[in-house]
Amino acid sequence: MELTILGCNAATPRKNAQTTAQLLEIKGQLILIDCGEGTQIQLRKLGIKFARIQHIFISHLHGDHFYGLIGLISTFRLLGRTADLHVYGPKAIKEIITLQLKLAKSWTDYSLYFHELESAESELILDHEKFTVETLPLDHRVYTNGYLFKEKEGPRRINKVMIDKYGVDVSDMENLKQGKDIRLEDGTLIANAELTLSPELPKSYAFCSDTAYKSDLAALVAGVSCLYHEATFLDNHQDLAVKTKHSTAKEAAQVAAEAKVGELILGHFSSRYSDLNEFIVQANTHFKNVSLAEDGKRFVF
Amino acid sequence: MELTILGCNAATPRKNAQTTAQLLEIKGQLILIDCGEGTQIQLRKLGIKFARIQHIFISHLHGDHFYGLIGLISTFRLLGRTADLHVYGPKAIKEIITLQLKLAKSWTDYSLYFHELESAESELILDHEKFTVETLPLDHRVYTNGYLFKEKEGPRRINKVMIDKYGVDVSDMENLKQGKDIRLEDGTLIANAELTLSPELPKSYAFCSDTAYKSDLAALVAGVSCLYHEATFLDNHQDLAVKTKHSTAKEAAQVAAEAKVGELILGHFSSRYSDLNEFIVQANTHFKNVSLAEDGKRFVF
Repeated sequence: MELTILGCNAATPRKNAQTTAQLLEIKGQLILIDCGEGTQIQLRKLGIKFARIQHIFISHLHGDHFYGLIGLISTFRLLGRTADLHVYGPKAIKEIITLQLKLAKSWTDYSLYFHELESAESELILDHEKFTVETLPLDHRVYTNGYLFKEKEGPRRINKVMIDKYGVDVSDMENLKQGKDIRLEDGTLIANAELTLSPELPKSYAFCSDTAYKSDLAALVAGVSCLYHEATFLDNHQDLAVKTKHSTAKEAAQVAAEAKVGELILGHFSSRYSDLNEFIVQANTHFKNVSLAEDGKRFVF
Repeated sequence: MELTILGCNAATPRKNAQTTAQLLEIKGQLILIDCGEGTQIQLRKLGIKFARIQHIFISHLHGDHFYGLIGLISTFRLLGRTADLHVYGPKAIKEIITLQLKLAKSWTDYSLYFHELESAESELILDHEKFTVETLPLDHRVYTNGYLFKEKEGPRRINKVMIDKYGVDVSDMENLKQGKDIRLEDGTLIANAELTLSPELPKSYAFCSDTAYKSDLAALVAGVSCLYHEATFLDNHQDLAVKTKHSTAKEAAQVAAEAKVGELILGHFSSRYSDLNEFIVQANTHFKNVSLAEDGKRFVF
């Protein structure tokens, strides 16, 4: 998986800091997660072929997470898009977007599907051939979901050395990938396990923004390869975190530690902090493998 | 008056080309005209103290002219604005904005007034102490208005030389500015015209985007100091101009010539053109004093 941070600033965009949007490449599919104002401009600046995006997941209806959506949907139309587009987000997202398309007399020529969410429980919302997406109910001032992206287990991998040793025919490769045993021309049966290696370990990514510390979240994201968790504040603003239902760097790291994730990315920083290194320092008291999100930064896991 | 182009690209923002937004400073007031996506980011980049904006005029409800409005309104709230904000635009603009504020549970703490327009005739919509604003009904695919900003005539200007010659007292200055005659201590009546100069000539600015060539527009903008007129296409795309209800550079210049304006600014260029100089060349066949809009460019008139 490859994750590109398009923006990670809290509340409002700044001169050199966009609001939340991320691009996730998973099994060749390009997925957009949140879409703050100016996301389409950021996509262009980073040279991303964003017409490939087929799924967009919006966490909640605060502006810094979705004011760029209507512009992106309109631009897809202007660029002559024909491929379907699926938008997942809180109930009412369809009303907001379609009202604007209607008033602009600019219906999309491509099929635009809205998948509106309102459950307070985690649910499977996309079962793609190569991956799944589940919601992660969060605790914010308005109805909010994080999203958990999980690769499905791929085919078994051909063990080239053993294939050559037994002289297995190329026509058997597909059966081998599917886990089947193989009978050689002389009638000998060779067990699949002898000719193949285990599939690559499926990777997973959890996106959690915006939320107060939520004690049941760790169970839902247990063992993910990478966790993005918002860290709007440092410890000295714990009162603001409580009041605005955001997290501190320590709280984000606590979730990462409880869930035993592979790595933690912090983001959604309040503009009040000029030195972000302290977020790492405070998070490290609970979890070691921590990075900071940054506009344009790529993470591969 | 000082006009700053924040963006002038048609349809969608590009890497280095924002969609329509302009800032007009008139008699010390800061006015925003149209508000494409990312306008607030552009305002920050140009170092403009945008909290001073009290009036916003939206021409029509196509995204490249107003998708940045909701973000700006939200940011004003987050920055603790208390001053009133007046938004002028087509009917339904209030519904779009308030729906989004409601769903975000983020009502503004400042007073937000919507002035919704639906007349097909030019009307006076703002009568400020120092200037007026009238609508300029345009011809586009959806209901669209340009706007005409006119300074009111200022006070008469004191003629310092004559004041000194007659020894007029400082307490008479306000009366002189208002056009009154003055009686000296010795009883002599001095005519106002002898002690003052005419007020500065009021300036005016007409903003016209988006529109097909409209034959009755010239009468409405006759003699303005500066006319901004969209020029989405060059001559070779006249068919597209007709189809999409936009103007060519020549048509924009034709309006300028008919209206005998002081200067013409062209903008709203289609992204298909890499060399914009041809817009000047083609416009010059009808009108000489032509400039091209450009992100960040300032015009003083």
